[in-house]
Order: sequence, then structure tokens, then C-alpha cells
Amino acid sequence: MEQKRIAGEKATEYIKDGMILGLGTGSTAYYMIKKVGELVRSGMNLKAVATSRNTENLAKELNITLVDIDEVDRIDLCIDGVDEIDKHFNAIKGGGGALFREKIVANLANEVIWIMDNSKLVDSIGAFPLPIEVLPYGYTQVIRKLKSYSLNPAIRVKDGNVFISDNGNYIVDLHIGNPMDINDVYDKVNGLTGVLETGLFINMCKRIIVGTDSGVKVIENSLI
Amino acid sequence: MEQKRIAGEKATEYIKDGMILGLGTGSTAYYMIKKVGELVRSGMNLKAVATSRNTENLAKELNITLVDIDEVDRIDLCIDGVDEIDKHFNAIKGGGGALFREKIVANLANEVIWIMDNSKLVDSIGAFPLPIEVLPYGYTQVIRKLKSYSLNPAIRVKDGNVFISDNGNYIVDLHIGNPMDINDVYDKVNGLTGVLETGLFINMCKRIIVGTDSGVKVIENSLI
Repeated sequence: MEQKRIAGEKATEYIKDGMILGLGTGSTAYYMIKKVGELVRSGMNLKAVATSRNTENLAKELNITLVDIDEVDRIDLCIDGVDEIDKHFNAIKGGGGALFREKIVANLANEVIWIMDNSKLVDSIGAFPLPIEVLPYGYTQVIRKLKSYSLNPAIRVKDGNVFISDNGNYIVDLHIGNPMDINDVYDKVNGLTGVLETGLFINMCKRIIVGTDSGVKVIENSLI
Repeated sequence: MEQKRIAGEKATEYIKDGMILGLGTGSTAYYMIKKVGELVRSGMNLKAVATSRNTENLAKELNITLVDIDEVDRIDLCIDGVDEIDKHFNAIKGGGGALFREKIVANLANEVIWIMDNSKLVDSIGAFPLPIEVLPYGYTQVIRKLKSYSLNPAIRVKDGNVFISDNGNYIVDLHIGNPMDINDVYDKVNGLTGVLETGLFINMCKRIIVGTDSGVKVIENSLI
């Protein structure tokens, strides 16, 4: 919790007055959003696009001005969590099921910061199940195909029911294992009819901020 | 009409007893489905997966046994219309807005037949607007991107309202013009976050059946 908190709060130091923010989803993003609420309360002029209904609700409670994704022509800074990331800045995201909106928002952002506790920074990704968003129509055919690729798909279930994304779709988790051949998985999954989007976020962030027991580490991505 | 009718009816000669069919959508598929109804009435044992709600309703009226896409492990034969097709069997489909379901069903089929009137068979595709299915969330960002690629996107409107697909999404029509650089368009559009599927059906059919004023032409695809 403490690692998540210090990472989330550190990221808000990159926020400048007048910015349109992309607000991520999840337990680390929670601390960042709380801090954004404080910045707003202290008089900073900020607007934000939320990546999920949960984040939207939290932002409303904190009086952060929300704008619709379709109303903005840019996002200045997107701050979001990750589930796993390697040293080449390849990440798995979407453990919370918001991968589609997270990717739309990150794509639109001029700058992206991923925030995390120390356990998320790994040598190679794949231990965390890769979530993909799948249309309900024909989803069993998609699962059949994923099985034929040995990607170990499992439809996500929550509280005994099939989990439904904010877009009304299913999430299928691919239990691939570590290390994962990222390009191979990308090619197999991305071309599949019925797959809306994957939780693979490849080299999209400008920097990562990692909470550790001895403080925060900021790692810059020199390729972006 | 007569060209569509003879093409649609000719295709039903490839139907064998016991088959699971994929039933297409549109004005040419209409004649094929009517004929399938006759085959069922005459005692043939057939099941069918429908590619749209309209086709589903028509099949029900004709007492064709419908099965859900998620209940079948194969489709033996899919028969559907096209909006444009070239001599390399590259087609644009989805003028009716059912492109996603049409593609899922065609992908699953062991054999695919496209049926059409003579006007659909062209030297190169692109005059017919290429439909793509786009998620409502963030769709203006997708349109902005498509504009930057000079793909002339226009969100589809029907009876004064934004057209909603059977999956609850929007259809954006790309007014590209003829001839279209198919690979270039495919690469640009397919990787775009927010695009569920395109109406490009590349070399997927075993044969095409074309109604002309002097009868039906059957053209076999030697590559499949």
C-alpha cells in the first residue's frame, strides 16, 4: 500500500496548471487521483478524462472536472498503473478490466507515466495473465482459436457471473506464463476477429515511477 | 433484382443434407434464404447461423432451424452477398452494417460462397465506401486518426440518427475511392484502437456466383 501511495503521489509532481489529464484505474491510480483532488482543491485548473466508471466516480467525489473523451483534442498527461512491466517498457495492463479505455486514453496522451509498486517491475512479462477484450457475439469461437494457439484462455468471472467490461464486452485472460514471446502473442491475438483490444501496452510510456521500501524510483524511457 | 435472384438461388445448389449453414445479410442473400426455406420445407435437414437480426427474423419466418454461433463447432457452408469484389477475390462487405457478424461466420465456415449481381464484380475495389465498426467510446478520436490518414471517414447515419450495429457500435464509412491500396488501408485501419473490424474480406471465398442478364456465372477461386 505504501509503495503504491508514494508512486501515485510522486507522479502528480509532473502535473502542470491547465493540463488535461488522463486518469488511470486501479489501486495505485487511486492514490494519484486522491492527490489530483488535492491539487484541484488548492486551486489548480485541471480537467480529466477517466479510464473507467470507477475512476469517474472517484473523480466526481473529489470535484475533479471531468471531460468526455470525445470532447478533447488532446490529453497532456496520462497517469495509470500497470500489472507487469519489463525493462524495455513493455507492459501488461487491464487487470481491472479497463484495458480498452486505458489504451484509447494513453494513445491520445502527449505523455504517459505508469505508476506501480516494486513487484510490477519484472525481467520479462507473462506471469500476469494477459487480458483481452472480446465481443460477446461468437466469443466461444475466439476462445477455441486462442486454445489452438496454446494461449490458455479463460473467460473472466466475477462474483459467479461473467465479467462485463464498461463497453459491454467480455474479458478473456490469457495464462501464458513467463517469459512470453511478445511479438508472437501480439500477432496471433491482434488479427483475431472478435478481439477488440489486448492489454499489451508496448513501449508507450515516457517514464515509470516505482514505489519501493526505500522510496520512489523514477525511470526515464530514452526511446520516447 | 433478377440478377440477384438467380445468383442467390444458384448458390443453394451447393447445399447438402445435414449441413450447418451461415446465412448472409442483404438483398441478394434474401433470395438465397427464401430458397433455403424451400429446401427445409421439402424435407432437407439443415441448421443455420444468421449474420444479422434481419436474417434471423427472415429465417424464423421460413422455419429454418437457427443455432447460436456459440453452439456450433463448425459451419459447413456460408453464403453471403458482397458490395464490391475484384478478380483476386478481395471484397468490401458490410454495406448493411453486419460486417462483424458476417466476418465471424465466414471465418468459421469450411466453404464460403459470395453471391451478387453483375455490378458488384469490379476491376478494383474502393468506389463503394469501406465500412468499419467502431466502439462508441472515443470514436471521435478514431475519426480524427482516419482523417489524418486521408481515408475520408463519415459516421453512418440512418433516418436522422447515428446507425447502431447489432453489437451496439457505430459504423464509419471510409470514402476512399478507386483504386484503393488494399494493404495500405488494411495496415492503417486494423491496428487502430477502437476499430473492432473492417469490411475488407480478403481472398476468403471458394467461389463467387454472379447474376447477369444472360444467366449466372460461377467463378472458382483456385487459391482456396
